[in-house]
Amino acid sequence: MQFFEDIAIGQRRELGSYTFTAEAIKTFAVKFDPQRFHLDEEEGRKSLFGGLAASGWHVGCACMSLLVADGQRLAREAAARGEKVVAWGPSPGFRDLRWIKPVLAGDTVSFVNEVVDKRVSSSRPGWGILQATTTGTNQRGEQVYAITATAFVPMRGQDG
Amino acid sequence: MQFFEDIAIGQRRELGSYTFTAEAIKTFAVKFDPQRFHLDEEEGRKSLFGGLAASGWHVGCACMSLLVADGQRLAREAAARGEKVVAWGPSPGFRDLRWIKPVLAGDTVSFVNEVVDKRVSSSRPGWGILQATTTGTNQRGEQVYAITATAFVPMRGQDG
Repeated sequence: MQFFEDIAIGQRRELGSYTFTAEAIKTFAVKFDPQRFHLDEEEGRKSLFGGLAASGWHVGCACMSLLVADGQRLAREAAARGEKVVAWGPSPGFRDLRWIKPVLAGDTVSFVNEVVDKRVSSSRPGWGILQATTTGTNQRGEQVYAITATAFVPMRGQDG
Repeated sequence: MQFFEDIAIGQRRELGSYTFTAEAIKTFAVKFDPQRFHLDEEEGRKSLFGGLAASGWHVGCACMSLLVADGQRLAREAAARGEKVVAWGPSPGFRDLRWIKPVLAGDTVSFVNEVVDKRVSSSRPGWGILQATTTGTNQRGEQVYAITATAFVPMRGQDG
């Protein structure tokens, strides 16, 4: 993870992809979103989704898992280069989550994160606030998911 | 689930509560948010959270599971009264999700859903668009979570 000053608007990270198997879709749905079109192929086909569809929350969680893995990979690489690894603050939440198209069993979604805004925090000295949008695109090149999140990022100045 | 015309702004549903055990917090985190303060008590205590903290996505998913269970309960009750059960459309997403305070191992969060806005859809004849906010409050009465979601709801007029 980088310091606030080192992050540029427009900066992109490819996070990798996640394949939504029928089994993973159902396992998630049983626990957190037991609607019939997330649990059963036939019910999915009869629904507006047109097939066994992943819960939107499953898509969000899959995206989060790739975002965390990518952050951990970057931190390991920075540590290997002997750089200081920066701990970001907790996220206060996000705005504008969009489920654009259904994610059906067998779909593979690739996620990309892009910094869309940055500003110095007025309430927390030494911290900046980052806005980043992560989008998910399926194997047919269709955007299926987008989320804009906020993160608190420490400023280099603080640390000397 | 009700028709658009039967839903009033300010209408509230108590969705029930969810206890975040240490085991559930870790099981979720391993799969979807493997950050150290979601995986280990000691790491949690050393973090800004001050204890083993549930992933924000876990809080969101727990809220979703209660929302779905409540909808299914309402549908069963309507069916038992011989009323027509209305199928709502899929959610296009949500805006303004807030993780207000940490949810720590052992916390019990109660969720309440409230309709905050409704309007007739201009793009989909026969459908209305509902905005509802769901909030989560812990056992000390502190609000820890809030989310505002959008849903497409069929209008009675359509159905005759």
